[in-house]
Amino acid sequence: MNERQEEARFRRRAVKVDDAMEMVIAAAVPGRRETVPLWEAGGRRLAESAAATTDWPPFARAGLDGFAVRSADTALASPGSPAMLRVVDAVAAGEIASADVAPGTAVRIMTGGAVPPGADAVVMLEQTADARLDGQAAVRVKSAARPGQNVAPRGEEFRRGSVFAGPGELLRPGHVALLGTFGYAAVPVYARPRVAVLATGAELLPVEAPLAPGRIRDSNSAMVAALIMQSGGVPVMLGRVPDEPEAAARAVADALARCDMLITTGGVSVGDYDVMATLLRGLGPVEAAAEGEAQQLQPQSRLSPQLPPDSRLLFNKAAMRPGAPTSAAVVSGRLLLALSGNPGACFVGFELFARPAIARLQGASPEQARPKQATAKLVGGFAKGSPHERFVRARLYAENGVLYADPLAFGKSSMLASIPSADGLIRLKPGASGAAEGEIVDVILL
Amino acid sequence: MNERQEEARFRRRAVKVDDAMEMVIAAAVPGRRETVPLWEAGGRRLAESAAATTDWPPFARAGLDGFAVRSADTALASPGSPAMLRVVDAVAAGEIASADVAPGTAVRIMTGGAVPPGADAVVMLEQTADARLDGQAAVRVKSAARPGQNVAPRGEEFRRGSVFAGPGELLRPGHVALLGTFGYAAVPVYARPRVAVLATGAELLPVEAPLAPGRIRDSNSAMVAALIMQSGGVPVMLGRVPDEPEAAARAVADALARCDMLITTGGVSVGDYDVMATLLRGLGPVEAAAEGEAQQLQPQSRLSPQLPPDSRLLFNKAAMRPGAPTSAAVVSGRLLLALSGNPGACFVGFELFARPAIARLQGASPEQARPKQATAKLVGGFAKGSPHERFVRARLYAENGVLYADPLAFGKSSMLASIPSADGLIRLKPGASGAAEGEIVDVILL
Repeated sequence: MNERQEEARFRRRAVKVDDAMEMVIAAAVPGRRETVPLWEAGGRRLAESAAATTDWPPFARAGLDGFAVRSADTALASPGSPAMLRVVDAVAAGEIASADVAPGTAVRIMTGGAVPPGADAVVMLEQTADARLDGQAAVRVKSAARPGQNVAPRGEEFRRGSVFAGPGELLRPGHVALLGTFGYAAVPVYARPRVAVLATGAELLPVEAPLAPGRIRDSNSAMVAALIMQSGGVPVMLGRVPDEPEAAARAVADALARCDMLITTGGVSVGDYDVMATLLRGLGPVEAAAEGEAQQLQPQSRLSPQLPPDSRLLFNKAAMRPGAPTSAAVVSGRLLLALSGNPGACFVGFELFARPAIARLQGASPEQARPKQATAKLVGGFAKGSPHERFVRARLYAENGVLYADPLAFGKSSMLASIPSADGLIRLKPGASGAAEGEIVDVILL
Repeated sequence: MNERQEEARFRRRAVKVDDAMEMVIAAAVPGRRETVPLWEAGGRRLAESAAATTDWPPFARAGLDGFAVRSADTALASPGSPAMLRVVDAVAAGEIASADVAPGTAVRIMTGGAVPPGADAVVMLEQTADARLDGQAAVRVKSAARPGQNVAPRGEEFRRGSVFAGPGELLRPGHVALLGTFGYAAVPVYARPRVAVLATGAELLPVEAPLAPGRIRDSNSAMVAALIMQSGGVPVMLGRVPDEPEAAARAVADALARCDMLITTGGVSVGDYDVMATLLRGLGPVEAAAEGEAQQLQPQSRLSPQLPPDSRLLFNKAAMRPGAPTSAAVVSGRLLLALSGNPGACFVGFELFARPAIARLQGASPEQARPKQATAKLVGGFAKGSPHERFVRARLYAENGVLYADPLAFGKSSMLASIPSADGLIRLKPGASGAAEGEIVDVILL
């Protein structure tokens, strides 16, 4: 590497994390749709709006087991002086009473049963006693019923046609219940995106290999696969990128021809052997391309191994620690995310860029795709400032209603040991000074 | 139903929620094991301890790209008066230097490379400049290096043999990274338990059916399936339990012969048609059975439809709202959880009993199986007390480091609309008065 190349590497323009995130979200286009049986729809993202197909409840429903009554008939009832009502019918849930509830009568009703016309309240079974009146079935009601008591009126929760979930909504179990209620036996959802995983680094051994001097096993690929599955994607494991740039360019292009997105790990920093940095440098700096300096860029591109001609760089440096060299590009219309090879930085890069992109490929809106954030009280303090935003893995816990963020392995992004324990990423703002004990900090929830 | 039967129903003994949870956890026995490829291990529970198979890092590693130096050689270096060192080798990650770092020399090294003997620090590339010394490659180091700077010593994070995850641990992406690092290409995990789902209720229509007067669709089964999948189980959808008790008993026994656990919804309350209550009543009250009053119980059991003879009731009433009639039994050595048919109560019952049980079937320890709890500040207040613990669905959010729990649909457990928005369940202690605005409450995290 000569001085000029080295200088070119150091000259990378750092993009703010939020801006980089928006670029990635904009470049990830919602993909294919499919239909799944309702019971498998949990955890998927809806592809269309879902609306109430009927008023809900569809009829006045009994909230518990007891007797449907006219509340007026029970106005004076008490344990010592119960109201005596003739029982004209008994309806199980799913049945319809054969008779209305006329004054002086009651209908035995089960939870979820349709309250018969005439009745405006349900008295719970425990507040009644069986009786006989003129040789016929009757009931003693021991307390006054309020009008509407234990009755859910028709349409109380939903009016027919009201939308309860929009496209891109992540279906939680409660959504599945609503979809079932309204008859969605098959649910239109976005397909799980196929996300290719490629590692770079001549030092990497496959996980199953014995260690050799100076070498380590590729643990990032499997970690990224686990993160992809967590995000609703399907990992496609492609092994290691060849070290040789032309072959690496072909591997990248092949992966993106087969998959909806590609995540690479490693090879993005300023070292001599950083193959992803080499490939992406060929795409030229963003600002120059945007200003139309194509003539100046073309020769530079030709010096580099060729990615497909429609490729464009999104960014090759993010204003963050760890993971500054994290890079992103669009290759053949699909997103290539080049994460750092440092496990901690790789993890942070995934949460900031890959998880939102995978959500977006499944139809999430930009708002839905962004990481969930909260604020928390910092445990301990950081003396040292940082010129860029810093992301610190943290354990979160609530004590006495206060949410605390307890940093794990501050300044040791290479540390593997604490990754499993992280519930959040503290976002420390750039600045000369660090953050004080007890300061309120933004936290990305993991 | 005669007065005596009715009395028997009302006499159900309410078990405290925490006690009921422990009963369920004790009854769910960790199940089969299997081996999965590492990249699929995320979200599974480990079946054995996993330990470091080597010191980690396995050698002194360079934390960034630069030059491996003897820090003493750079002690007086500054931008105006750099230290000049002869470059004796260049090692990529994965390579081993051919020469030690003798006084006055340096080795070009990449991130992750093995720091050669002699060197005790790595100077980042940006703080150096290429040079020539006596016609040979050299480097100018512009700042003093601290001993140990940018070097991760061998064994800094893990000593060989140290256990980093135990049996029952839920494997997060960070665990997967550690397993990869230490060569676990195939991971012993607990098999995903097969959890049968059966609905009860004559009013229920299949989700695909058009509505009919007085009827509703079975939305609980699909919701429970989504919850089972979230918990790591495999739902086995068996439709609706026959209304006729003998047939229902057979359906229950068949389900438990095929699956590791059974969840039923509905049919547990005091109504005339509550088939699960009828089946479980045949098992007799827990306290009597525990005191060995077998003779007295036998005839009562025979009156009821027969579950397999080794069946035992765990509880048929929980001291909670909603979901008081939630019941649990062990049938043929396997757990039967009978949840309320009310969707909100069904949801709460799942979180309190089914999720812990499914975790336990996957090898979670009792501690790991219990719901994750936090404390939060209550938004709004509840005037009304409750004789039993009350579980209120809530939206959780953090503002200024304070965790708030905003109740959804208090007192309307039948409400479907708010289930999807719930992030937590507020646990309101039993008592004459409710809870005040701003009070700190326990919250189960969903």
